[in-house]
Amino acid sequence: MKKIVCIGGGTGTYQVLSGLKKLPVEITAVISMCDSGGSTGKLRQELGILPPGDVRRAILALSDLPFAYKTLEDVFEFRFNGKNGNMKGGLAGHSLGNILLAALVQITGSMDKAINEAARILNASGKIYPVTLDKTNLVATLDDGTKVWGETNIDMRNFKLEHKVKKVYLTPKAKVFKDAALSIQNADLIVFGPGDLYTSIIPSLLVSGVNDAIQNSNAKLVYIANLMTKRGETDNFKASDFVSEIEKYLGSSKDKLSHVFVSKNIKKQQSKIDKWYRHYGSIAVINDLKNNKNYKVVEKDFADSTTFYRHDSEKIAKTLMNILE
Amino acid sequence: MKKIVCIGGGTGTYQVLSGLKKLPVEITAVISMCDSGGSTGKLRQELGILPPGDVRRAILALSDLPFAYKTLEDVFEFRFNGKNGNMKGGLAGHSLGNILLAALVQITGSMDKAINEAARILNASGKIYPVTLDKTNLVATLDDGTKVWGETNIDMRNFKLEHKVKKVYLTPKAKVFKDAALSIQNADLIVFGPGDLYTSIIPSLLVSGVNDAIQNSNAKLVYIANLMTKRGETDNFKASDFVSEIEKYLGSSKDKLSHVFVSKNIKKQQSKIDKWYRHYGSIAVINDLKNNKNYKVVEKDFADSTTFYRHDSEKIAKTLMNILE
Repeated sequence: MKKIVCIGGGTGTYQVLSGLKKLPVEITAVISMCDSGGSTGKLRQELGILPPGDVRRAILALSDLPFAYKTLEDVFEFRFNGKNGNMKGGLAGHSLGNILLAALVQITGSMDKAINEAARILNASGKIYPVTLDKTNLVATLDDGTKVWGETNIDMRNFKLEHKVKKVYLTPKAKVFKDAALSIQNADLIVFGPGDLYTSIIPSLLVSGVNDAIQNSNAKLVYIANLMTKRGETDNFKASDFVSEIEKYLGSSKDKLSHVFVSKNIKKQQSKIDKWYRHYGSIAVINDLKNNKNYKVVEKDFADSTTFYRHDSEKIAKTLMNILE
Repeated sequence: MKKIVCIGGGTGTYQVLSGLKKLPVEITAVISMCDSGGSTGKLRQELGILPPGDVRRAILALSDLPFAYKTLEDVFEFRFNGKNGNMKGGLAGHSLGNILLAALVQITGSMDKAINEAARILNASGKIYPVTLDKTNLVATLDDGTKVWGETNIDMRNFKLEHKVKKVYLTPKAKVFKDAALSIQNADLIVFGPGDLYTSIIPSLLVSGVNDAIQNSNAKLVYIANLMTKRGETDNFKASDFVSEIEKYLGSSKDKLSHVFVSKNIKKQQSKIDKWYRHYGSIAVINDLKNNKNYKVVEKDFADSTTFYRHDSEKIAKTLMNILE
């Protein structure tokens, strides 16, 4: 079977993994390790563990339990919010899957073993690796020199919005987890995105050894561009802006980029997008890419038919499989 | 298969259930619902659920997972304590099994369904029922009229130790859970104890409908007396004192009491017992019972050979099976 490695975290990676799950392909998810917010952030702080949140999502995406055991997925997905979301106390806001992973880290002794156990219990149809076992933080430098510390503060930035992200880096430096590197090296297809550019996709490329693993692989490399821009991160970005940032952080392995997926103009949803813009400051990502000697531009309607802001798992998975053949 | 119902909670019930688990008998655990301390107490307070602690222990006692899934038991048993027991934060002191049960209560809508799901996931070889679905509290009245509120405050009492517990009651009143009542009615053997007299055993008898169910059953009724007395609860109690309290709370169903298990004199461990006394204020329970027309006294060495304060699961289970035949 061909080997697909999805690098990232967050809901975009969840969508891609969910789509691939039922297909005849060997799946590996390599998960970013710099999430710092919410339930995950609290667990990092209180227990000194690596962030479990994105791992939890990836395991759920790949979970393939028989019907009688679906409760385990409900449990893994459960969040303590109280009836009206106004719960107080030590568990408030915590995701149970995160808590379980935190406990498994203590039981097994490390995040990679904890993931392995959780994935086994949920019968995940694929492997899930942390991109690194080193504890690190994401920092962004804005174009006026301001530093924003921590993934969540970058992700949720609501200040100095007139200043763009100039650069992101990890501190302290982090080294790639060997099994993650190996899976990248042996992949037939590597998938980046969709997902927040600076907080979900690029953080993995900042881990020392990831670019080398990509360089050493014979894989095709697909980047799935976002459907919508994100305020404070990718304001007014066109598809080419996303790609050139990805290329920048791919460094010498940028030649590997073989395909870029961009969704077709979604003008039919314009009224909803306008509302979205007023609420979230997001606009649709315009496809200004042309095929070139490096990569092929695959333009299709990739959006979920019921929404405009989320990729359709099946459409993405099908197109990825076409590339593999 | 013959049906055994163990009524109680705590480590004593855990020992009995563990011993019975592998034997050809239908096991039901009916679990007391007035625990109010520690992790369980916090969850009761924060989430308004019934107490999960004793339920967790019963499920673990009956858990029968294949080797490859033993991690699930580790997870269910795990407690967040930090490396040196000095962890801070919202999860500190919490048992993960309790947290899981709390989540399952919210997912399924009730404690009985939550127990059912957890028991199914851990492949429990038996049924576990809460004795009641009503939220209630245990209150003790001391012989000077002082009232002690809450199971844990009675269990851990370190004041007015010169005053004995005169009476315990539930407030508000609680009604038996129908499946628990049915299992008691249909039992071939009902087992009380070992366990803390006023905080683990008698609370179930205070639930309205439990005595009726015992009265309506054709079961033999075994009471397993404790090996050691407990400070603030059963100071200086001999076996007959335990039994007469049990009989008092059995009320009109006291005629059903058919066997009392008392452990043989454990003088050979006297030096350890002396140490135990200095530390916990406990002494060995003396057997001052004689066979009589109501019940048979079964005196054996029931203690775990490596300790003196805990019953041996196998010895208890074997003797219970003998009675069933």
